[in-house]
Amino acid sequence: ERTYTLPGEIQIAVLPQGVTWIDVDGVHDTGVIQAVGDAVGIHPLTLEDIANARQRPKIEDYGDYLYVAVRMLAPGDGEFNSEQVSLVLGRGYVVSFQEQPGDVFERIRERLRAGAGRLRSVGPDYLFHALLDAIVDGYFAKIEELGERVEIVEEEVVADPDRGTLQAIYALKRSLIALRRSVWPLREAVAQLERGESPLIDETTLVYFRDVYDHTIEVAETVETYRDMISGTLDVYLSSQSSRMNEIMKVLTVIATIFIPLTFIAGVYGMNFAYMPEISHPWGYPAALASMAAVAAAMLLYFRKKGWI
Amino acid sequence: ERTYTLPGEIQIAVLPQGVTWIDVDGVHDTGVIQAVGDAVGIHPLTLEDIANARQRPKIEDYGDYLYVAVRMLAPGDGEFNSEQVSLVLGRGYVVSFQEQPGDVFERIRERLRAGAGRLRSVGPDYLFHALLDAIVDGYFAKIEELGERVEIVEEEVVADPDRGTLQAIYALKRSLIALRRSVWPLREAVAQLERGESPLIDETTLVYFRDVYDHTIEVAETVETYRDMISGTLDVYLSSQSSRMNEIMKVLTVIATIFIPLTFIAGVYGMNFAYMPEISHPWGYPAALASMAAVAAAMLLYFRKKGWI
Amino acid sequence: ERTYTLPGEIQIAVLPQGVTWIDVDGVHDTGVIQAVGDAVGIHPLTLEDIANARQRPKIEDYGDYLYVAVRMLAPGDGEFNSEQVSLVLGRGYVVSFQEQPGDVFERIRERLRAGAGRLRSVGPDYLFHALLDAIVDGYFAKIEELGERVEIVEEEVVADPDRGTLQAIYALKRSLIALRRSVWPLREAVAQLERGESPLIDETTLVYFRDVYDHTIEVAETVETYRDMISGTLDVYLSSQSSRMNEIMKVLTVIATIFIPLTFIAGVYGMNFAYMPEISHPWGYPAALASMAAVAAAMLLYFRKKGWI
Amino acid sequence: ERTYTLPGEIQIAVLPQGVTWIDVDGVHDTGVIQAVGDAVGIHPLTLEDIANARQRPKIEDYGDYLYVAVRMLAPGDGEFNSEQVSLVLGRGYVVSFQEQPGDVFERIRERLRAGAGRLRSVGPDYLFHALLDAIVDGYFAKIEELGERVEIVEEEVVADPDRGTLQAIYALKRSLIALRRSVWPLREAVAQLERGESPLIDETTLVYFRDVYDHTIEVAETVETYRDMISGTLDVYLSSQSSRMNEIMKVLTVIATIFIPLTFIAGVYGMNFAYMPEISHPWGYPAALASMAAVAAAMLLYFRKKGWI
Amino acid sequence: ERTYTLPGEIQIAVLPQGVTWIDVDGVHDTGVIQAVGDAVGIHPLTLEDIANARQRPKIEDYGDYLYVAVRMLAPGDGEFNSEQVSLVLGRGYVVSFQEQPGDVFERIRERLRAGAGRLRSVGPDYLFHALLDAIVDGYFAKIEELGERVEIVEEEVVADPDRGTLQAIYALKRSLIALRRSVWPLREAVAQLERGESPLIDETTLVYFRDVYDHTIEVAETVETYRDMISGTLDVYLSSQSSRMNEIMKVLTVIATIFIPLTFIAGVYGMNFAYMPEISHPWGYPAALASMAAVAAAMLLYFRKKGWI
Repeated sequence: ERTYTLPGEIQIAVLPQGVTWIDVDGVHDTGVIQAVGDAVGIHPLTLEDIANARQRPKIEDYGDYLYVAVRMLAPGDGEFNSEQVSLVLGRGYVVSFQEQPGDVFERIRERLRAGAGRLRSVGPDYLFHALLDAIVDGYFAKIEELGERVEIVEEEVVADPDRGTLQAIYALKRSLIALRRSVWPLREAVAQLERGESPLIDETTLVYFRDVYDHTIEVAETVETYRDMISGTLDVYLSSQSSRMNEIMKVLTVIATIFIPLTFIAGVYGMNFAYMPEISHPWGYPAALASMAAVAAAMLLYFRKKGWI
Repeated sequence: ERTYTLPGEIQIAVLPQGVTWIDVDGVHDTGVIQAVGDAVGIHPLTLEDIANARQRPKIEDYGDYLYVAVRMLAPGDGEFNSEQVSLVLGRGYVVSFQEQPGDVFERIRERLRAGAGRLRSVGPDYLFHALLDAIVDGYFAKIEELGERVEIVEEEVVADPDRGTLQAIYALKRSLIALRRSVWPLREAVAQLERGESPLIDETTLVYFRDVYDHTIEVAETVETYRDMISGTLDVYLSSQSSRMNEIMKVLTVIATIFIPLTFIAGVYGMNFAYMPEISHPWGYPAALASMAAVAAAMLLYFRKKGWI
Repeated sequence: ERTYTLPGEIQIAVLPQGVTWIDVDGVHDTGVIQAVGDAVGIHPLTLEDIANARQRPKIEDYGDYLYVAVRMLAPGDGEFNSEQVSLVLGRGYVVSFQEQPGDVFERIRERLRAGAGRLRSVGPDYLFHALLDAIVDGYFAKIEELGERVEIVEEEVVADPDRGTLQAIYALKRSLIALRRSVWPLREAVAQLERGESPLIDETTLVYFRDVYDHTIEVAETVETYRDMISGTLDVYLSSQSSRMNEIMKVLTVIATIFIPLTFIAGVYGMNFAYMPEISHPWGYPAALASMAAVAAAMLLYFRKKGWI
Repeated sequence: ERTYTLPGEIQIAVLPQGVTWIDVDGVHDTGVIQAVGDAVGIHPLTLEDIANARQRPKIEDYGDYLYVAVRMLAPGDGEFNSEQVSLVLGRGYVVSFQEQPGDVFERIRERLRAGAGRLRSVGPDYLFHALLDAIVDGYFAKIEELGERVEIVEEEVVADPDRGTLQAIYALKRSLIALRRSVWPLREAVAQLERGESPLIDETTLVYFRDVYDHTIEVAETVETYRDMISGTLDVYLSSQSSRMNEIMKVLTVIATIFIPLTFIAGVYGMNFAYMPEISHPWGYPAALASMAAVAAAMLLYFRKKGWI
Repeated sequence: ERTYTLPGEIQIAVLPQGVTWIDVDGVHDTGVIQAVGDAVGIHPLTLEDIANARQRPKIEDYGDYLYVAVRMLAPGDGEFNSEQVSLVLGRGYVVSFQEQPGDVFERIRERLRAGAGRLRSVGPDYLFHALLDAIVDGYFAKIEELGERVEIVEEEVVADPDRGTLQAIYALKRSLIALRRSVWPLREAVAQLERGESPLIDETTLVYFRDVYDHTIEVAETVETYRDMISGTLDVYLSSQSSRMNEIMKVLTVIATIFIPLTFIAGVYGMNFAYMPEISHPWGYPAALASMAAVAAAMLLYFRKKGWI
């Protein structure tokens, strides 16, 4: 095995069984892409797709080679970052184009360097599978992180929801929409590989593509399940907010409603009529207070009976 | 028939017609899985799937054997617990891998020990069917329990809904989402078996797989129906809560609205103007009270006519 | 033609052209089912399905016979009652199993007794079709009744909606979910018959199955249309309730809002300050009343201009 | 060409190339249908379908003839009226059955009478196509009318929505549901014709059926688009109603909230305590009024700063 | 190459390899369409479709030529304007019909005039592809503009939503519905081209149609994603509006609720009873004020403890 590090972020690894892996970092230099493309014989349309970093995940069979464009999730935590990876599988070689340095292929490089194992003894289709598999595994890491955030939000909604919870819910929704947009076409592309229509993929390797396909289905379904769960969480949040608000308004309205008749009674005896027999009676004041208390008690009882307080 | 209980929770039953059933409890010991896999010739990818307890339900045909991964619902009541069961059907043997001891296969073991019946006289495909059937029957038990809870919640919503009802509805929704996630791929996997493309399954046994398929469809459709019903129940709950709240607010607002004009009249005659002819009139006070009563009665009549009280 | 009435609710009719129709009422006596099954040669799995009254509508081709399980709607009005009917079509015979006495086959029996007509001159497939057709016709009766109830509810919602309307809407929704659950698999089952893959069904009879299939599609689509309509009705109900509530709250709040400033003015002149020039002025009282009237009129005008009253 | 007008609303036109068009108005007289059916050889099941005016749109190939049932929209404006038209295409003849006199075929009759043109020189399949085309064109007229009503409602919702707008929205929704119910099966039926599986339709005529199919797709998609638009309009209406209501309640509540503290201050100085130093102070009254004005101004400023008014 | 500019807005370009491109601006003059149609042999039905500016995007294979109707988005910014373009690909020629002058084909004309490149050396199918590609690229420009508006609206909703935001949301929704209506049938039409069933399209050109197909899928999926995003934005807007309103109502109600009991106390001591011991006590007034302050403080503490303020 020999590894060349050319200028311009190109790494070439020639494996013992005659497989060449060309890894290109940075697709913005069209000259480099053109040169690599000319060297292995890639169609101009494919080169355009490689250079266009907002390509939709897809697979295209050009006879001499297979072209796969997928989105690779950045290995680090935090924000939802993805970059485009273009893989080209030809007779005896694999070319990978990345937008930026830094990828999920480190383990594959280590296994190649370690020198043993299946990866060094079989054809380029297996290496191609290993690259795809590493990318799909990157989705699992993201999915797990999202799953944890979904669970945290679900607990927050039940325990102590606030405006931040709502924003977290909407942020998760947006992340899931973005992830879904990457996963679904990826799944279709891998399904096409798994059907084994290309002579570039050996029948013994097909079972590994079936495994990758399985993983993409699992990612896709988990995304759907999380979408269902986050929708449910949003419903719980909105309904709990609305019922909390209703509770507050109800209590406040009950307080107001109890005092309004009492204030009315006080108003009646605050009138300045010359002839008001109750006014001059010695028991008038206590009787008025007592009647107020009675009205308040009656209303409270009525509200309690109705289940309003 | 001989049954060996090896260390490491492996049970081997050799049936008279030459069928061997190897039942492995616990998939966390990769050494055991590897050993069993080597003994009967299982592909490394399958062994990985067996060890991965969060495998999606699926079926894979490796030519020499069929691999089926399904989720088995824990036989007990209460929480929604599931564990993964991996079944491998080969020529002359069936291997089952479970995550933990405790399963739904007890009745099959009893029938095997009882010594008679179809199970002892036919090939491994029938045993394989029996295991799958027992797992699917476990779903029916869960489905029935969920159905009872759906009905209880439906009655509660009509009779006496409270916050607990809402939580029960959301818990049911979550359970149904989880169940759906297990059932749909299971259904697809059994459908593939039922199409009878594998030579490992005899044509006379196919009719039994059709029966299992039928059951998985029924489970899947019942889950959908319950989802529809629980959505309807949620709508009823929310609408009843909102209309109850509205009812309360309406009554309280009507009370407040009736007293506000009366309090205004009292306020007018509480003013301290030097020249207020009504004040010194002997009938002033009764007239004020009467006018208040008249205003209140007029408003009540108006509200009643409008259908507000 | 001879008709035997055996003990145990079995009726056997042997038609002139050699067709035997065995009609079994009550599937709870497994002995009877077993006996009939043995007599004509039915697979044990089919017998299990016949005995299981909560079987999903389906069709199964066992080579020697066709097994169809459908739900029959009880002929009477009122509640949505259904029972399971199992039909078995073999060479020269039709067996029907019902849960309870009372069915939709009376007209067929009459036609058989009447002695003439197509039913007496052709094979068992035509009789089989006639039974299925009678069952599907029973769905039409139910559908029409539901359609009338949907229309009544639609009128009620526009004319005079109350809580009973809401309950009627939810009851209709539930009935339509239940009906849908019976109709969709029935439709699939009849579609399979109509494709004419079974040698038990003569090509000249196929056109009749196409007719039945057509009816099941019509039932299924009508159910969907009613679901759409009832959803729309629910929306109308909820929006009319909410806008009526809003109307009430608005009027009450307007009344309160008009009186609150007036009460404030009265409160000002109810203050006991020693030096209040307006108080002792002879025109003070009329001026205060006039200013109150002016404030009220101004607010009313403003509210009217804004379109709030 | 000869045209016979028989009693019983049957018109027969024999075209020069030997094509006979029999047009029957009124399907309630089963005798007439039976007679026509016998004359050209129509299967009893088709005759039943013709007589059943609530038939679902469909196409059936009986080998000797094609039977098509469609709903024809009444040519006039206004309400959504449809009647069933049954078309039978056989060798050398077309029979059309309508529920009532009055149809969309007038232009075809005129073209036939005018004597020239394609319609008079080709086979019955072209006439059959012309009838179908006229019916589908009737849908376009309806669709356009509905489109105008959708636009009017959309403008009303933005400009000056009232309860009538809501009713117009729901009426449009209902019309679209009804139209959809006619269009979708019609589309399926025409699709079947367009696939050209029947020997009754010449290959050169197929392109015309493709044109009709195209029109049915356009009608179906326009109905879906209008459903989307009317749903959006309903959302706009509901949200504008709710935000208008909220606006009113907010203003009224702000007014009430400003006056409540002022009334409280007035209430304090309306108390009759013997020792209240402010009362007897000459600046007491102006100070009280000034403090009230200050409180009101402070609250107004606060509300404005918060953006509530 | 020769370019003729005929009267009536027809441009004819004859390319060296014998390809003729006829570009017709304005489809309202049926005479011109008829003339062009006669010259190259177009079926009357196609001519009708060309003249009908509200044609649904579609592709039709007439054997001798392919007819494609698509909607072209006006190249300028601002409103969502589209016009219909009809493309006819025959042996050796391409005809394009536009509704109005002004199109997205300028770059193609420049490349043709520039004289070199693939466009001048290959058959009419490549020119046909170039025209379609230019039209689909026009969708990308629109999509990007809509994407920017979606992002602006998303930021507005979080930062400072007002009624204009809502109108922008609904305007975007409508634009997306309209765009979707153009894109989906376009995608279907290009899919049909890409399947390569027509002998008019050379196999080497097929790969370019696959590229165009890819772009239409991307446009369609982006439209769906924007619909999802704009729905989410609408939910955020509505929920933020409702929670802002609730916040206001809560604060106002809390203020009112605190003052109502205080006003009641003031009312009590404003009563004119002859015997009220507190009234004449020197500490009565301060005690009353203190009790009011205590009540207010207690209520504020309670509300704070409850988390209402």
